[in-house]
Amino acid sequence: MSHATLDAFMKSYKQRLEEDMRLAVSQLNAPSIIKEAMDYSLQAGGKRIRPILLFATIQAFQRDPVIGMPIAAALEMIHTYSLIHDDLPSMDNDDFRRGKLTNHKVFGEAFAILAGDALLTFGFQRIAEATDLDAEQKVRLIAFLAKHAGPEGMVGGQTADIQGENKQLTFEEMEYIHLHKTGKLLTFAVLAGAIICEASKQQFQLFETFATHLGLAFQIRDDILDIEGDQMKLGKPVGSDTGNQKSTYPALLTLDGAKKHLNKHLKAAKQSLQKTELNTELLMELTDLIGARDH
Amino acid sequence: MSHATLDAFMKSYKQRLEEDMRLAVSQLNAPSIIKEAMDYSLQAGGKRIRPILLFATIQAFQRDPVIGMPIAAALEMIHTYSLIHDDLPSMDNDDFRRGKLTNHKVFGEAFAILAGDALLTFGFQRIAEATDLDAEQKVRLIAFLAKHAGPEGMVGGQTADIQGENKQLTFEEMEYIHLHKTGKLLTFAVLAGAIICEASKQQFQLFETFATHLGLAFQIRDDILDIEGDQMKLGKPVGSDTGNQKSTYPALLTLDGAKKHLNKHLKAAKQSLQKTELNTELLMELTDLIGARDH
Repeated sequence: MSHATLDAFMKSYKQRLEEDMRLAVSQLNAPSIIKEAMDYSLQAGGKRIRPILLFATIQAFQRDPVIGMPIAAALEMIHTYSLIHDDLPSMDNDDFRRGKLTNHKVFGEAFAILAGDALLTFGFQRIAEATDLDAEQKVRLIAFLAKHAGPEGMVGGQTADIQGENKQLTFEEMEYIHLHKTGKLLTFAVLAGAIICEASKQQFQLFETFATHLGLAFQIRDDILDIEGDQMKLGKPVGSDTGNQKSTYPALLTLDGAKKHLNKHLKAAKQSLQKTELNTELLMELTDLIGARDH
Repeated sequence: MSHATLDAFMKSYKQRLEEDMRLAVSQLNAPSIIKEAMDYSLQAGGKRIRPILLFATIQAFQRDPVIGMPIAAALEMIHTYSLIHDDLPSMDNDDFRRGKLTNHKVFGEAFAILAGDALLTFGFQRIAEATDLDAEQKVRLIAFLAKHAGPEGMVGGQTADIQGENKQLTFEEMEYIHLHKTGKLLTFAVLAGAIICEASKQQFQLFETFATHLGLAFQIRDDILDIEGDQMKLGKPVGSDTGNQKSTYPALLTLDGAKKHLNKHLKAAKQSLQKTELNTELLMELTDLIGARDH
């Protein structure tokens, strides 16, 4: 598969997802301020990497990716709620994200908290109301999503991240944070595709291994970009992690060591993919893209 | 059914629910601080009125109330998350609830926000992982709960409540807030019992009407208690609504008018119950209790 095909795939599904989410929020029978606050962050851009991973996994089974739309929307809503809450003054206290004012800077803290709550709740509703999946699949998807997003997943990672602020963490502590805070939702994206397409138990495990390595690669690349990146492309100040005395892969492994570690994970991710014996060209290219991304 | 029987029922199921929730949180593989913060608010007391309504509805169908335990726990977790977030400084800014320090006063704002997020997410997980219900029922329960708790339900009501602060609301605006902020979850409690017991369409509608009147009665009683109540029993200062210039039933209808309105809703609630032709003695008594409660 050519790079142009991957580009077209990403662009097409990103657009369809954004339209789907915009429509879903616009149809809510709710106070307009909460709909505006939800929509503001949902439409604030981003690579939509989680939904794209989900669509590309469905594509690997040679099924129509569009059957994953309600799950992709739920996933992006839950990712978005986590960003809104993370940005709050009592959390990371960020005024900007992707070059735009954060939710609470526009709508105030109270509505930002509620917009996050609304997105989290509505995400589960979207899955429960999906029409192209049977009840057993929906229950499995909801159980997995909750486990990956909740206290044993993303929220657990965010908790550990806050506890680790301004401390020198061990490698294990840092990796717990990444595996949970960013890794768990990325893993869900891939596993949701496997659940929708009724993957075999072995394929399911291979996808889980793939996604875990990919999630860590994603985070290591993030840490490297924070040192080497271009502020304009990143939309945030370069070197902000160092300023916060955060524990990062380059800090713990040196920059060169972090790059080697990144490549190790990319290789392991691709090996797992290959073993599924599915049509994984798109996922392979996505993996390369994540490893080499410049923003 | 005697008052003693209702008391015993409430006491027994309150205790079982609290044990169930304590065990579920203790078994989470998550950072201990988030488990402590979740447990703190889950075990902070309260009448457990929503779970009791659910159990009593199941009892009306002469089924074993315990089959509703995962749903009751999910419901109480979601009610509890909403209290944690409502109490935050950027929302109602309350230091005490039921005579105990609020979550953020004990754990700080960041962990309070995360504990709320964790409870909301884990609530959906409990339903998806319930063992005594089939997948179709679980999907229906999740879709209903999300709709009642999210932007079209409780979060919508909380949004309108914040928008209405320090304003004189019309009766309709005030009623929208109550129907959503407190009414929607109370309604879900009853409807969840009906879903679990496979109520007929007609029974379902009667329970929905019952619960809507009961929810409004609950709120009117709350407003009356704020004027006539005993601070020791309430665990919050009497007259706090007036101090906040909140629109209340007594303010809009006079105290006497509010009491008449309360009785109208109690009567309508009980009429709907009667029409279900089920074993509703316990729900009848609960309705009287809610109408006459002193805290």
